[in-house]
Amino acid sequence: MSIAVISTGTELLRGTVLNTNFAFLGRELTRRGLAIRLGLTAGDRAPEIHTAFAEALAEADTVIVSGGLGPTRDDITLDAAARFFGLELETVPELEDKISAFWKLRHTGRVPKPMLRQARAPHGAKILPNPNGSAPGFRIDTLYAGRARRVYLLPGPPREFEPMVCESLLPDLDGIADTGTREHTIGFLAAGEPEFLLQVRLEKALEGRPVELAYCATPCGTRVFVSGSDPEAVRDAAEVARKEAGPLALEFGELELAAALLAELRRRDWKLVTAESCTGGMISAALTAVPGSSAVYRGGAVVYSNELKQLLLGVSRELLDAHGAVSAECAGAMADGATSRLGGDCAIAVTGIAGPDGGSAEKPVGLVYIGVRAGERRVVEKFLFRGNRDTVRERAAGSALLLLHRLLQENQVDSVTGA
Amino acid sequence: MSIAVISTGTELLRGTVLNTNFAFLGRELTRRGLAIRLGLTAGDRAPEIHTAFAEALAEADTVIVSGGLGPTRDDITLDAAARFFGLELETVPELEDKISAFWKLRHTGRVPKPMLRQARAPHGAKILPNPNGSAPGFRIDTLYAGRARRVYLLPGPPREFEPMVCESLLPDLDGIADTGTREHTIGFLAAGEPEFLLQVRLEKALEGRPVELAYCATPCGTRVFVSGSDPEAVRDAAEVARKEAGPLALEFGELELAAALLAELRRRDWKLVTAESCTGGMISAALTAVPGSSAVYRGGAVVYSNELKQLLLGVSRELLDAHGAVSAECAGAMADGATSRLGGDCAIAVTGIAGPDGGSAEKPVGLVYIGVRAGERRVVEKFLFRGNRDTVRERAAGSALLLLHRLLQENQVDSVTGA
Repeated sequence: MSIAVISTGTELLRGTVLNTNFAFLGRELTRRGLAIRLGLTAGDRAPEIHTAFAEALAEADTVIVSGGLGPTRDDITLDAAARFFGLELETVPELEDKISAFWKLRHTGRVPKPMLRQARAPHGAKILPNPNGSAPGFRIDTLYAGRARRVYLLPGPPREFEPMVCESLLPDLDGIADTGTREHTIGFLAAGEPEFLLQVRLEKALEGRPVELAYCATPCGTRVFVSGSDPEAVRDAAEVARKEAGPLALEFGELELAAALLAELRRRDWKLVTAESCTGGMISAALTAVPGSSAVYRGGAVVYSNELKQLLLGVSRELLDAHGAVSAECAGAMADGATSRLGGDCAIAVTGIAGPDGGSAEKPVGLVYIGVRAGERRVVEKFLFRGNRDTVRERAAGSALLLLHRLLQENQVDSVTGA
Repeated sequence: MSIAVISTGTELLRGTVLNTNFAFLGRELTRRGLAIRLGLTAGDRAPEIHTAFAEALAEADTVIVSGGLGPTRDDITLDAAARFFGLELETVPELEDKISAFWKLRHTGRVPKPMLRQARAPHGAKILPNPNGSAPGFRIDTLYAGRARRVYLLPGPPREFEPMVCESLLPDLDGIADTGTREHTIGFLAAGEPEFLLQVRLEKALEGRPVELAYCATPCGTRVFVSGSDPEAVRDAAEVARKEAGPLALEFGELELAAALLAELRRRDWKLVTAESCTGGMISAALTAVPGSSAVYRGGAVVYSNELKQLLLGVSRELLDAHGAVSAECAGAMADGATSRLGGDCAIAVTGIAGPDGGSAEKPVGLVYIGVRAGERRVVEKFLFRGNRDTVRERAAGSALLLLHRLLQENQVDSVTGA
């Protein structure tokens, strides 16, 4: 099976929306050994969608389309697909009933007529139910240039798209896919070494094995992917790669540092607190994005102003006057204050200058101090991140998680050595 | 000028990285009246990149490519481009010097040989400097199917890509583009009404005008885009649309509620504080993502545990025992406690159940209470959001910003009425 994905939506081309559907689909397919061969993004105009269909069908036997199935006038994917494949659109009474019921749950009065555009299905298409919205999805089986093709149309809103991928699309693909051609991938996060140096070592260690390596640099380290068609070869190679990557590499499958850190703390039954200045809640948001984080993470203080650094964390006025808020001393005091005042076994504290304003010759934009505590141990490190405000904040948040993870690993090494 | 964009990177197809470069480029081009006609995503394999080149060049005279210019073995875009266009790759001594200098700034020892792959340029290509990395970009002028084409190659890391778009690509395009064919777009955020109902009214109000309307639903409301080739017609139509969208629509160009809210508070010289439970720092992260937010935003408490709700916000034990942490009473007490204890003129407080666990028949997953204070006025609202953990959190954060923005608007209306 070869897969192409078409994302429709002028808002994607204008950059007002990030294409999270494409990434979600990529992750879910990869997890099942399936790969996207080509991605296409087209605006809400019939000629552009037709072009995308032609290009996708030339490259792949399975085409997954997202977006443009709703009731507004710029939702034209269904009509464009019907025209492209020469299929009539037929009103389906069951869909009409469903849409009316859906409308009545949320609004008063009769269903507006444009809403019922969503009750139409291309002749012969299989209808894929949408439990979270009014627009159904479709599977169209067709011939293109004399060869059999499958085209899936799915709605664009992520809270409709994602469940339909899991509940309709993937089970349907499972029934088709030739398991022999699946690609197997194991990924892990290798922290603490630049992508390039890591790659040189890994390529050497895995030379001659029937696997491919791919890398992706993130603020927390390099994501390494080992893939190939033989699952055993992939597993063996990934084990070698992980060993080669060193003690800071996460477990197989762990690509997110926040989740790995919480799992590590959970094993120790330790509670975590945070104190954030320039990252302004990004670390707490990343931690609480992980389901079940409340078992480990108690909460934190976002201390954008100096008054709140004093009030919530007990950083002294004298310290702030002597060293400034962006200083190793302040980061350390924030970590200490968070541990004692917010009641944690360990803490992450960040203070820095994210820019674009607020920098000086002595303390430039990108200067960040990170303090972490784990039990009685405390480390404060100075960083100078390049990039714009978003990048500085993102790298500061990533580095802070990494620093605590490292301190915990060292603790572990210590206790093993001492045993 | 017609533009196609090729994003290279197997990590994009696997969904381990969100394609923020594509969105950034879309925003910057739109701001200049230029539109992307087609987006393509290809893996780090020569045949896939060649296919993408062929499809992009068939659709557009200008092709912008990101990614795959670095030193690792999966960086193959430069070689693939040289082969596709039949151009020799030549080592450029000035690039060698620059890469050596770049290496020495960060590492000891000699530059590894693979790093110097980045010193090669396609014969005749214009070199685009990269101030934030070792890999330069290129502009290749070529004939394809007998017609003149421009191909830009830019590196993939956002902190290298974004400055090069602004400093090299856009000025270069400005020198080429026929201003007569530019598309003009004005966008604004219309809050507080479902996308579909809004669309019905706007289409009617703008009937017959030479503009196109596009919509994009977000957790904070609907982004509305009015576009067309005549800037005056676009401006007139956008004014009508904004008036029709009602009092909660933001100013022209304001598409982000956090920025609009901070600007509104700045005008009044009011200070904002936050108290977050289920959103866990997402609101503070969104606020602090806006440059200059420290003038308005003092900070907040992330109170994931009940103890921290008591400790940092003074929510009483009795209240928590009687009503639970997810209750209107708790949301109100959190907003009050944030205002008084953290020292704000206004406050946002959120408590809820993001799931997947922790729900019950009485308090299901998706139940969220939001409390906002502005001066002496306080509002608490109950929400039931559908969707997964991420969606519930995102919608809760968006709704919380909206609720405070609304309360401020009402305050304004009040004071005008009272005058």
